Amino acid sequence: MNATGTRGRTALRPLLTHSARPATFDVSAVDEHGSVRDVPIAGEHPLTLYVDRREILTLMTLGAAPEALAIGYLRNQRLVRSLDEIEAVQVDWETHAVAVKTRHGLADLEAKTAHRTKTSGCGQGTVFGDLMDDIDSVRLPADATLSRAALFDLLDRVRTHETIYKQAGAVHGCALATNAGEHAEIVLFVEDVGRHNAVDAIAGQMWLDGEDGADKIFYTTGRLTSEMVIKAAQMGIPFLVSRSGLTQMGYEIARKVGMTMIGRATNRHYLLFTGAARFLAEP
Amino acid sequence: MNATGTRGRTALRPLLTHSARPATFDVSAVDEHGSVRDVPIAGEHPLTLYVDRREILTLMTLGAAPEALAIGYLRNQRLVRSLDEIEAVQVDWETHAVAVKTRHGLADLEAKTAHRTKTSGCGQGTVFGDLMDDIDSVRLPADATLSRAALFDLLDRVRTHETIYKQAGAVHGCALATNAGEHAEIVLFVEDVGRHNAVDAIAGQMWLDGEDGADKIFYTTGRLTSEMVIKAAQMGIPFLVSRSGLTQMGYEIARKVGMTMIGRATNRHYLLFTGAARFLAEP
Repeated sequence: MNATGTRGRTALRPLLTHSARPATFDVSAVDEHGSVRDVPIAGEHPLTLYVDRREILTLMTLGAAPEALAIGYLRNQRLVRSLDEIEAVQVDWETHAVAVKTRHGLADLEAKTAHRTKTSGCGQGTVFGDLMDDIDSVRLPADATLSRAALFDLLDRVRTHETIYKQAGAVHGCALATNAGEHAEIVLFVEDVGRHNAVDAIAGQMWLDGEDGADKIFYTTGRLTSEMVIKAAQMGIPFLVSRSGLTQMGYEIARKVGMTMIGRATNRHYLLFTGAARFLAEP
Repeated sequence: MNATGTRGRTALRPLLTHSARPATFDVSAVDEHGSVRDVPIAGEHPLTLYVDRREILTLMTLGAAPEALAIGYLRNQRLVRSLDEIEAVQVDWETHAVAVKTRHGLADLEAKTAHRTKTSGCGQGTVFGDLMDDIDSVRLPADATLSRAALFDLLDRVRTHETIYKQAGAVHGCALATNAGEHAEIVLFVEDVGRHNAVDAIAGQMWLDGEDGADKIFYTTGRLTSEMVIKAAQMGIPFLVSRSGLTQMGYEIARKVGMTMIGRATNRHYLLFTGAARFLAEP
């Protein structure tokens, strides 16, 4: 992943390892002509998350941003409310473990781990609690706007971004982009074998970089299912753009929280599904 | 989903509701030309699984085959070893619940629910236990073969199959097909917002229809991640075909169990990754 600078970082920054795994591996395959070729395939690694020595779950991940993934997972599951709560995040690929040490322990971890929901989206899904619990409290900036020019700028930048997907496929990508007038700039780009890992890693890196969601656009290659919309909303991002389609619950939640959601966005095509008031279609 | 006949059904067939939900819903969207259109989107519904009144988890599903999904989920998580253990499966969309009643209760449910793994694949992922536990015991038929003609026949049938994906996108599809000489015939086809729901629903319907995996081909639109390969192996299916790519763990597990795995399969193109000995490339 590429993170931008260190602006606005929290005073209490956790100690981090930096243990990204190689993204792709070559294997040999035989094609329809009988030719043997080396084909790059995406890495997939189990990574067990421990919080204060307590095992939470095992994520299957590409391993590109394991520390940000662990932080973002805890953020998006609302197990941690602020980066300041985290003292250290240490990834050890020998044991396939990421150990998160908190400063004061996690309150009501028991309660939050009581209910499990597997979600429709790719990847890890929602494990603990009901993400809908907090959705009523989400307030997205009413005055934020997205211009069509900025949307097209974002789509151009995503298209030309170097990706693991282009090499190996079998991954989903998520991008966090600035939103200024007619321009959008990718500030974070994460790919993972599960797209919920990708969105969680972005959520984690946003905390590490002190990035706010209100002036950003969130782009995903994946489908706009309920959980994807909820996570973007919880990150405070008013604009959600996807190359793919959406589900009924994704649509209903986006309407409920007043998010501007754009699907089937490629090149100069898109479908604006919700939050039209924020979208400036006129050049 | 379309199931074929009732051959080989178990003596103790569970009582089932038949509560499929509508697959798509129309919403209005504005396209890049400013035209408002009705766009079909895929349904997505929470469905909480109870086994003998005990809450197991909530699945987010299209709802096309909820009874088969519940059965297949329990099968693929190895919480139920045989259909005979299940007395009734009742779906109630009023309460978004599927109640599974077993004949004798489930042994070691506690033990099996101890570890949670979120997987790379789309959808619900692996919730309980470690799917790798049993993988060593999987034996796929060594003498089974797949001809290139049958592969192409399958790809043609999948391409022409009426799908929710073609209407609404945002779903993954899985197909179970016969494998006879130069021909393949789709016997089960399931789509869901999460592809692991789709594979689980097929596993459940295979039990209900008494379908064996040894003489079948499993096709998925989704990526060949570790869990997808493990589930196909546990269903005893020696041939796994995907339109998409694969991950490193998917590749390693397919090799370990001796599965013939073919990725990037569309029209007359494919990449044969593992189990080449079983594939008859010559016409």
